[in-house]
Amino acid sequence: MEFNLTESIQILAKTPSVISNLLKDLPDAWVTTNEGGDTWSPYDVVGHLIHGEKTDWIPRAEIILGDKKNKAFEPYDRFAQFKNSKGKTLDQLLTKFRELRAENIKKLKALNIGEQALMKTGVHPEFGPVTLKQLLAAWVVHDLGHINQITRVMAKNYKVEAGPWPKYLTVLQDK
Amino acid sequence: MEFNLTESIQILAKTPSVISNLLKDLPDAWVTTNEGGDTWSPYDVVGHLIHGEKTDWIPRAEIILGDKKNKAFEPYDRFAQFKNSKGKTLDQLLTKFRELRAENIKKLKALNIGEQALMKTGVHPEFGPVTLKQLLAAWVVHDLGHINQITRVMAKNYKVEAGPWPKYLTVLQDK
Repeated sequence: MEFNLTESIQILAKTPSVISNLLKDLPDAWVTTNEGGDTWSPYDVVGHLIHGEKTDWIPRAEIILGDKKNKAFEPYDRFAQFKNSKGKTLDQLLTKFRELRAENIKKLKALNIGEQALMKTGVHPEFGPVTLKQLLAAWVVHDLGHINQITRVMAKNYKVEAGPWPKYLTVLQDK
Repeated sequence: MEFNLTESIQILAKTPSVISNLLKDLPDAWVTTNEGGDTWSPYDVVGHLIHGEKTDWIPRAEIILGDKKNKAFEPYDRFAQFKNSKGKTLDQLLTKFRELRAENIKKLKALNIGEQALMKTGVHPEFGPVTLKQLLAAWVVHDLGHINQITRVMAKNYKVEAGPWPKYLTVLQDK
């Protein structure tokens, strides 16, 4: 499928309500259980998405489209949520994510990105030059990937209780 | 995690709105593209969930708890949606799923299932004896697994457009 900005914005705008819907009002154990070791719980994922709103997608798009000669992105901190979410309830995080995402969608629309702008590049700390189109496509996949992760983490809570069914419940089979 | 009926009902009740939220108003391509070959599109998944409401989870719970001596479940048709969804719009399917799920949650609550009832068994065509608890836990995992699948199928649409990012977007890496 070819990248389409309007459709991408549509999907990005859905994410906060999809995740709120999934997690809201659930007992803590459903929200804070992870897949073991240093894996992330749904709570951790929401914190990670908040950090992405603040430092990743839109700030990087602004670097690509801005006037500054230096197009290097700041490295992204994949673990910032463990510090930043401390002491906050899931509801607080969900509200914060919803607000930040709404602001960022507004900013994204205001950038009036056309076909040419989509081909402009920034410099990713690991990948080197990447286009705005790749950044925005990755943002959409990143959202869907974290909803995917939340549902997988939740599903695993009942892996034992589901008895023989996991044979056909592929979400329970580790990659 | 131990099975909990109230929490399970809470999660089962969320699924129609989570899936509606994800898919509503998206252009057809996002809804009907699958992962290739005979894999399922999000549209196919919604049809499958509808068939499950009609023939799988609650009907099987009723067999387990009912008076009939024969506790054998009907085999489940995993491909019914390809016939049953024909000619229907996604919106029609989403509405149908929402209605059927609401009815089934009502029925589930009306069954007044206690600890003892959870240990009653039915006979699965492949697994043999299974408890009501296992059936209901599998239902929850099945829901989460299909939301998981929908997000994965959608994410893959931008696998190419995301350029170098798929290296870190594990949802794009096939199992």
